[in-house]
Amino acid sequence: MFDRTKSFETLKRLSHQLVDLTQGSLTPQRIQEMVLQGPSFDLLYAAERVNEEILQALFDLAHEAKATEKMGAMQDGEIINEIEGFASEHRSVLHTATRDVFGSKTAAPEAKKAAELAKREIDKLEHFLEKIGDRYTDLIQIGIGGSDLGPRALCVALQPFHKPGRKVHFISNVDPDDANGVLESIDPKKTLVVVVSKSGNTLETLTNEEFVRERFKKSGVDPKGHFIAVTGEKSPMDDPSRYLASFYIWDFVGGRYSATSMVGGVMLGFAVGFDQFKAILRGAHEMDVHAKEAAPRHNLPLLSALLGIWNRNFLHLPTVAIIPYSQALLRFPAHLQQLDMESNGKRVDKQGRPCTYATGPVIWGEPGTNGQHSFYQLIHQGTDIIPLEFIGFRKSQYTTDLDIQGTTSQEKLLSNLFAQSIALAVGQANANPNKVFLGNRPNRILLADRLDPHTLGALLAYYEHKVAFQGFIWNINSFDQEGVQLGKVLAEKILALFASKEDSDAFTLGKAYINKLND
Amino acid sequence: MFDRTKSFETLKRLSHQLVDLTQGSLTPQRIQEMVLQGPSFDLLYAAERVNEEILQALFDLAHEAKATEKMGAMQDGEIINEIEGFASEHRSVLHTATRDVFGSKTAAPEAKKAAELAKREIDKLEHFLEKIGDRYTDLIQIGIGGSDLGPRALCVALQPFHKPGRKVHFISNVDPDDANGVLESIDPKKTLVVVVSKSGNTLETLTNEEFVRERFKKSGVDPKGHFIAVTGEKSPMDDPSRYLASFYIWDFVGGRYSATSMVGGVMLGFAVGFDQFKAILRGAHEMDVHAKEAAPRHNLPLLSALLGIWNRNFLHLPTVAIIPYSQALLRFPAHLQQLDMESNGKRVDKQGRPCTYATGPVIWGEPGTNGQHSFYQLIHQGTDIIPLEFIGFRKSQYTTDLDIQGTTSQEKLLSNLFAQSIALAVGQANANPNKVFLGNRPNRILLADRLDPHTLGALLAYYEHKVAFQGFIWNINSFDQEGVQLGKVLAEKILALFASKEDSDAFTLGKAYINKLND
Repeated sequence: MFDRTKSFETLKRLSHQLVDLTQGSLTPQRIQEMVLQGPSFDLLYAAERVNEEILQALFDLAHEAKATEKMGAMQDGEIINEIEGFASEHRSVLHTATRDVFGSKTAAPEAKKAAELAKREIDKLEHFLEKIGDRYTDLIQIGIGGSDLGPRALCVALQPFHKPGRKVHFISNVDPDDANGVLESIDPKKTLVVVVSKSGNTLETLTNEEFVRERFKKSGVDPKGHFIAVTGEKSPMDDPSRYLASFYIWDFVGGRYSATSMVGGVMLGFAVGFDQFKAILRGAHEMDVHAKEAAPRHNLPLLSALLGIWNRNFLHLPTVAIIPYSQALLRFPAHLQQLDMESNGKRVDKQGRPCTYATGPVIWGEPGTNGQHSFYQLIHQGTDIIPLEFIGFRKSQYTTDLDIQGTTSQEKLLSNLFAQSIALAVGQANANPNKVFLGNRPNRILLADRLDPHTLGALLAYYEHKVAFQGFIWNINSFDQEGVQLGKVLAEKILALFASKEDSDAFTLGKAYINKLND
Repeated sequence: MFDRTKSFETLKRLSHQLVDLTQGSLTPQRIQEMVLQGPSFDLLYAAERVNEEILQALFDLAHEAKATEKMGAMQDGEIINEIEGFASEHRSVLHTATRDVFGSKTAAPEAKKAAELAKREIDKLEHFLEKIGDRYTDLIQIGIGGSDLGPRALCVALQPFHKPGRKVHFISNVDPDDANGVLESIDPKKTLVVVVSKSGNTLETLTNEEFVRERFKKSGVDPKGHFIAVTGEKSPMDDPSRYLASFYIWDFVGGRYSATSMVGGVMLGFAVGFDQFKAILRGAHEMDVHAKEAAPRHNLPLLSALLGIWNRNFLHLPTVAIIPYSQALLRFPAHLQQLDMESNGKRVDKQGRPCTYATGPVIWGEPGTNGQHSFYQLIHQGTDIIPLEFIGFRKSQYTTDLDIQGTTSQEKLLSNLFAQSIALAVGQANANPNKVFLGNRPNRILLADRLDPHTLGALLAYYEHKVAFQGFIWNINSFDQEGVQLGKVLAEKILALFASKEDSDAFTLGKAYINKLND
């Protein structure tokens, strides 16, 4: 158990003498030294409330939890998605295989098999993209959760890399306004529709697919020549009579870990081209290898996971703000919300015992500098402490910039990022109580050169592995999602009320709510 | 002091015998009865952990805090934006006056004066919109914080009401990729640019304005015929030689409360037309009058504020998820983050004393049903409890819907909303620990007919007043933002380093970070 380890006791003891960053201890030397260089990214963590003794205890915790071995087992394809002793999913977790397609020789047999399956779909995609050429100007992706948030975040992040004249749209919500809004802006004749559902029976996705098919038919366009399925082999959606093409995904790739599979691949191949899609895979694959093979002290996602556990379990901070200083990452926090909160928002451990310690925090965030003019007031001067993870880039995506009063916009952006990191840590005394900043707000900076497809792939994989490492250390199953079931079952019952098909005592609560619709 | 009141003691005592919603106490009768009807919206709060005794104590708390009187004082224009006994802002708070333009006879003299100023700008806007006719197809709003988040949320929410052929874009971030991305998609000849800054010296906004002006000039378009200023009278931006037109805002309207002033007005008038803009004002005004005049027990934003205080200060829940079951409200939570967290993220009270109780919570959220496939796992089965505020509508915005298996998409959407409210409250027992739902997740539903301009105005004002009521009860100043200053000052110092203009010991921390750029 996480909280019965020797290092947990040590860390608990160390948390009683906290590192104080406000009394001159955030020095230039500290900033120079507390940096870990990894693939594509450096992690600058001088503004976290840790010292060498705490770091050592955190790495001891990782060692006791066998974090590195578990990462290896995951990437080797062992069955790790399960709750021991209870009915549960019983699967390997091999999203890393979807990008292990560059001739790696180290893969274990299960992983190799998965990578071969992935490679087959990638080859199919290359062929498909060549075949369609420039026949379509627009693509609509219909999917929800992992079939929407990750792909959407990547699509928005790579806007400057989009092929000219190509537009991508997303429909996710069962709210009819979502589909109607998108359908207003496209010409069915020139539009490709990618329907994504692993199970082939996601309510929102099937409803929206039907919605869009109807509209295509009304416009005199046969959906058959426009609809593509991304689904599990032999799912109800795996039906060549209805789709122009089908691409497969598998049980060993969870929805929230699926952006580098065909769930994101078809859309990205269309939007940014096949070579750029491969650059994403390559960036992610480099981070995968790093997460698996780098020694703990040099392991970027592991260090980040441990700093997060320090803040969560020993400083007792219940949320994490993820603030990219890059407008292109506008929708990336929404992807991380799913990735992190759906993976680690668990209250029983891998043996089914209730966790006696906090697990996944609330993840939220918006780009800086925008956030500075919004919620930063609370972060600087509220009654709660919010740890922050900043993401920054040395260069902008577009090469055009403008020098105003001696500095470019990119330099202004970076100045703000660094200033916030320092201000949050150091604080400021003042005789006027309303101008006091208590400081000691822990934060770290993930810094890379430029947000291109390769770097974005690495960023995606970095967070996947940070989340997985935290799950390994907390001894929870980061790969199931039993918490979505109850709402789904109740929604079906209430839906039956709307359809007037069923009416029994079990539905009376829903009926009471429905009655309020008519008030 | 908030935590020295008699009702605080009562509430603390009552919090030791919590209302349990899992044991059959969420009955149809409870759902029927625990509803408050207000302008445009009903508040359904049966799934909150309160009973009549707790509600009574909460209303006693509001009475002790003089919440209603303070709302009256605010809307009457008294000086309430201040910290007593210390150097601070010293202003009235009259965003309500920006929509009190329908001939109200009850306004106090200060409020009346403010409303007259607002009316003058509204008339100017009507005239301006008539004058420009259909000369422009696109509008770019350049602003940040309150000049961006509120207007953007409203713009996105009203997509189906946009005039055909008109597009609105926003540039907020100093990140040059933000401006470059927008500039790629517009034709300067047909584009109107609205630059919004009350002070006329917001770094990001002036930088982006210059960025866009340069691009216009390079395209051979004279900015003079395309740029509009929304700013304070006599600010550095109040310069007719540079702008086609100027619209004014005033010290008595805070940035995060300014969407109904010309900060949102010019853009909205262009996008949805002057009449629809007035409908937004009318909806907001109705809520203003309600917040000021409705008795506490019938006051929608007051009840919501009190339920929030119960969750925050007595159930000790540090975050609030705001989940609109409406894709159109996609960017509304980002607006509420600023509104709530910048207003109530304060740690000293109105007399400058440190608060000995929690104030503003972390606000976050994404639309449902999307969230159900993302972070709801943590909400249902995580180790922390997250209170939720749902927003729902009886009808969709577009009238097109599709009946699939006996129900429309809108009915599917509402079924999910109600199902989640019930599931979160009631929970579910199971022999399999991974399938257990503990329930007792407090939540409430704000329900209206249809998200049209009038309803949206009411929704905006509802949250403004909820936040203000909470600030009144916590005895804090919800209208300043001293917490943004330190980062601003440090950013300027680090910027000087980039410009190589200054170099002293004070900048060494920034320099250390800048050195990491070159590693």
